[in-house]
Amino acid sequence: MSTASIDNLTARLNRLPGIGIKTAQRLAYHILTLSNEDVEGLSSALLNAKRSVHYCPVCGNFTENDICDICANEKRDKSVICVVKDARDVSYLERMREYRGCYHVLGGTLSPMDGVGPDDIRIKELVERVENGKVNEVILATNPDVEGEATASYIAKLLKPFGVKTTRIAHGIPIGGNLEYVDEITLFKAMENRREV
Amino acid sequence: MSTASIDNLTARLNRLPGIGIKTAQRLAYHILTLSNEDVEGLSSALLNAKRSVHYCPVCGNFTENDICDICANEKRDKSVICVVKDARDVSYLERMREYRGCYHVLGGTLSPMDGVGPDDIRIKELVERVENGKVNEVILATNPDVEGEATASYIAKLLKPFGVKTTRIAHGIPIGGNLEYVDEITLFKAMENRREV
Repeated sequence: MSTASIDNLTARLNRLPGIGIKTAQRLAYHILTLSNEDVEGLSSALLNAKRSVHYCPVCGNFTENDICDICANEKRDKSVICVVKDARDVSYLERMREYRGCYHVLGGTLSPMDGVGPDDIRIKELVERVENGKVNEVILATNPDVEGEATASYIAKLLKPFGVKTTRIAHGIPIGGNLEYVDEITLFKAMENRREV
Repeated sequence: MSTASIDNLTARLNRLPGIGIKTAQRLAYHILTLSNEDVEGLSSALLNAKRSVHYCPVCGNFTENDICDICANEKRDKSVICVVKDARDVSYLERMREYRGCYHVLGGTLSPMDGVGPDDIRIKELVERVENGKVNEVILATNPDVEGEATASYIAKLLKPFGVKTTRIAHGIPIGGNLEYVDEITLFKAMENRREV
């Protein structure tokens, strides 16, 4: 049966995204069966991550150093900036191992419904980078949802006066996908953006 | 992008049951966006739960006191013992708010495949309770899977010489269930255990 400290742990776990009350309870009971070393390890991993990780002052990515590994890497092309919603998106794109430019993490997308305006995300910092640096291309890689599209259009319009090349990642049928299971909007995008072969 | 301490946190979270690598990564990134207070709260909730919770020496349930609340409660009927696989099962049965007896937590079920024999779970302690106490009924509430059924039969056979009433929780169609979606074995059990109305 649960005790006060099990209930507290369960409530804390339950606040994490995607962890419902049943999962939180299952995790809490599992944690009690772990060794002291494992529980202490998890507990200090939480504190260490929170303590040592901060935002890169250049791109807004997570880092433990003064500036992040990508901004510090001389082999990365500083003239190409890929704009993403959050730091997790950087790790997704890096998995590709193909992109050699750098990033700009917005820390959110425009969402008037949730009260998120242009000043609440790192758009000003992006404009400054374009203004000051030798930027040739800005790739808008926000998600293809309402907020992501709105944010991409907003930034594209804002960057127009600087004459920088602004691109949007392609939308279409995923590789390995099947026409039967692709939604109509994706299908429409795939048709619209068809290329001659 | 991930750093050493994000990777460490992700790896630690990934070891928890039901937390795959993608969920672990999502949680780790979410944790970095929490306030210091929230991260410290979660971190110490882990340590506190592990430090203050131990097994009740009577029934094997989790407790923060000398013996658990149920064993310590004078209103609970000590002559009825409900045998369950683990402490989580106690909290499920308590949710019913109907059962007034006490419990015996086995801490596992017999599973020769995994090398779990009668000496590895708290069967000896159950026999001692039946031998020494004024026990009228032992309710076997292990799960209706292979290991749970085998454990229930084993305990029933072991308790036979003591002349104590040994019962098994009923199996059948869940309330709100539908014949169409119930598996054949449950259906068979439901037919077999039919009652006159």
